[in-house]
Amino acid sequence: MVTLLLNKEDVDENTPMPELISAVEDAFAAYETGDAQMPAKSYIDLPQYNGDFRSMPAYLDAGSWDAAGIKWVNVHPDNPDRFDLPTVMGTMVYSDPENAYPLSIMDGTELTMKRTGAAAAVATDHLAVEDASSFGLVGAGVQSYTQLEAISQIRDIEEVVVSDLNEARIEQFIDYFGDEFDVREGTISEAGHCDVLSTVTPVEDPIVHPTDIGEHTHVNAMGADAEGKHEIADDILLDAKVVIDDFAQTTHSGEINVPWSEGVIDEDDIYGEIGQIVTGKKDGRTPEDGVTVFDSTGLAIQDVAAAHVVYEHANEKDNGTEFDLLGVR
Amino acid sequence: MVTLLLNKEDVDENTPMPELISAVEDAFAAYETGDAQMPAKSYIDLPQYNGDFRSMPAYLDAGSWDAAGIKWVNVHPDNPDRFDLPTVMGTMVYSDPENAYPLSIMDGTELTMKRTGAAAAVATDHLAVEDASSFGLVGAGVQSYTQLEAISQIRDIEEVVVSDLNEARIEQFIDYFGDEFDVREGTISEAGHCDVLSTVTPVEDPIVHPTDIGEHTHVNAMGADAEGKHEIADDILLDAKVVIDDFAQTTHSGEINVPWSEGVIDEDDIYGEIGQIVTGKKDGRTPEDGVTVFDSTGLAIQDVAAAHVVYEHANEKDNGTEFDLLGVR
Repeated sequence: MVTLLLNKEDVDENTPMPELISAVEDAFAAYETGDAQMPAKSYIDLPQYNGDFRSMPAYLDAGSWDAAGIKWVNVHPDNPDRFDLPTVMGTMVYSDPENAYPLSIMDGTELTMKRTGAAAAVATDHLAVEDASSFGLVGAGVQSYTQLEAISQIRDIEEVVVSDLNEARIEQFIDYFGDEFDVREGTISEAGHCDVLSTVTPVEDPIVHPTDIGEHTHVNAMGADAEGKHEIADDILLDAKVVIDDFAQTTHSGEINVPWSEGVIDEDDIYGEIGQIVTGKKDGRTPEDGVTVFDSTGLAIQDVAAAHVVYEHANEKDNGTEFDLLGVR
Repeated sequence: MVTLLLNKEDVDENTPMPELISAVEDAFAAYETGDAQMPAKSYIDLPQYNGDFRSMPAYLDAGSWDAAGIKWVNVHPDNPDRFDLPTVMGTMVYSDPENAYPLSIMDGTELTMKRTGAAAAVATDHLAVEDASSFGLVGAGVQSYTQLEAISQIRDIEEVVVSDLNEARIEQFIDYFGDEFDVREGTISEAGHCDVLSTVTPVEDPIVHPTDIGEHTHVNAMGADAEGKHEIADDILLDAKVVIDDFAQTTHSGEINVPWSEGVIDEDDIYGEIGQIVTGKKDGRTPEDGVTVFDSTGLAIQDVAAAHVVYEHANEKDNGTEFDLLGVR
């Protein structure tokens, strides 16, 4: 038997975004209905290298398909300077739940970007105004691309405003998407007055303030993934309909973790989890709603759902590289 | 950059057993001195498939080298009958701790057998009589081979007695080792009267009783790896010098888990952890000792230490298959 190796390009080329968005929505639903297993992330902290490893195993049963796997991922902020390597790298092992054979090993870095975009799209689908046509981005780094790729699948995005301190990153982004969308550089406030805003920065002091945002903007707060990170001003969070991906993860390391730990916001300020919305247990956007915020930390079930889509697609198209790792059968 | 893929054969061929035994001893020492990190195994239970997945991440610093990685492993007892696949399969991702690049992905099944043999050899080195020359085996399945391979590295084993209910397994074992050792089939009692005994069975009712064992035999109790498993009679355990690999794991799922949960044995009946012995904090065998027992459940640090040895050896010899999984640099 063989294991299908899928490198960065393979993952990129075998991720049909509409299917991925649907699979990630299924994963949120399975988590809500108790049809998923997601042990807490476990950490290995290596202060001597200013880095850490995280293991993210998960299983989910979406009814018509189920999937299991683990992502082994790191955060080493000195990597770009010291090793010319990305801060974050991931390796995903995707296994058949029925007999545990490792069906595929894939680049977990590319996979993470894809599934993060897909999560924002699921939230946007339920929380943005129906006729959303403008999309703002604060941060034009590696995670920004899949935000636009995914969100443009579920809303008819025409105009894109991108804000970043780094001019080169903005130019690169405009080069990449300029043919497909009306993309321009803008201030944070201009980005924030779009119908949908995604923030994908690593900041620890909020950079989006109440005057920077439209009355009915839906915000995907994607950047915070560690204690102390915080992109959106507390006053916005206090007034908005705040939807989170997971209570434990967001209060620990999501967009809300700083005001949560300071006691500025509490459970009453959280409207619900995305799983409750996709299963219909709670409403998404209603006519009375103003600003909505999705606090996304990234769940292991998203990775497993994404790996399922990528593997099935690659397998069907005979893509990837077969390798007999285990030497069984 | 490339990741080195090491399949079953590669792992087998790139494991110099003396180096592996030494690395596993270093790992036990690092765990004892606080120079290792080993988060608790996390489980995904899939009763609908009668199986489970376990993730085993670890890091260790042995002074002259350090290593990080994760083993993703399963137990699906129906696999042989239903899928013609092994009950247990493992995939190991071995990473550079300094920048987290996945240096190698390897067959974790073969690796597990090797490091399990090495652990028994470390314990045997410290607990068996110095002039041990006979080795008994109860159970001649897949795990038995590396027991003899490893233990014969640290004691001058000449005579081997192997006991198993399955004649074909015994024949296969004798075929494999007959040229190198004086190997014969024997009863459990004959195996147990050797200088060193390893038990590698999945039984839940003890099959080695007090009359089955020599006065100074060292026993490696390798089989128990889950609640309810139990190979060695309580009376042997109560009289012996019992050394464990890890308190939490052995009391939960090691050889001592059944008498522990029944209150038959307690902390006073445990002499110490293998890490205390290899670091010299506690003595190994002393002239006064009779039977000694090593209760091995298998630690993630053993896998990481083994992966280090295999990767370094394969890399030096230009073995394995290079694959650019992440597409960085």
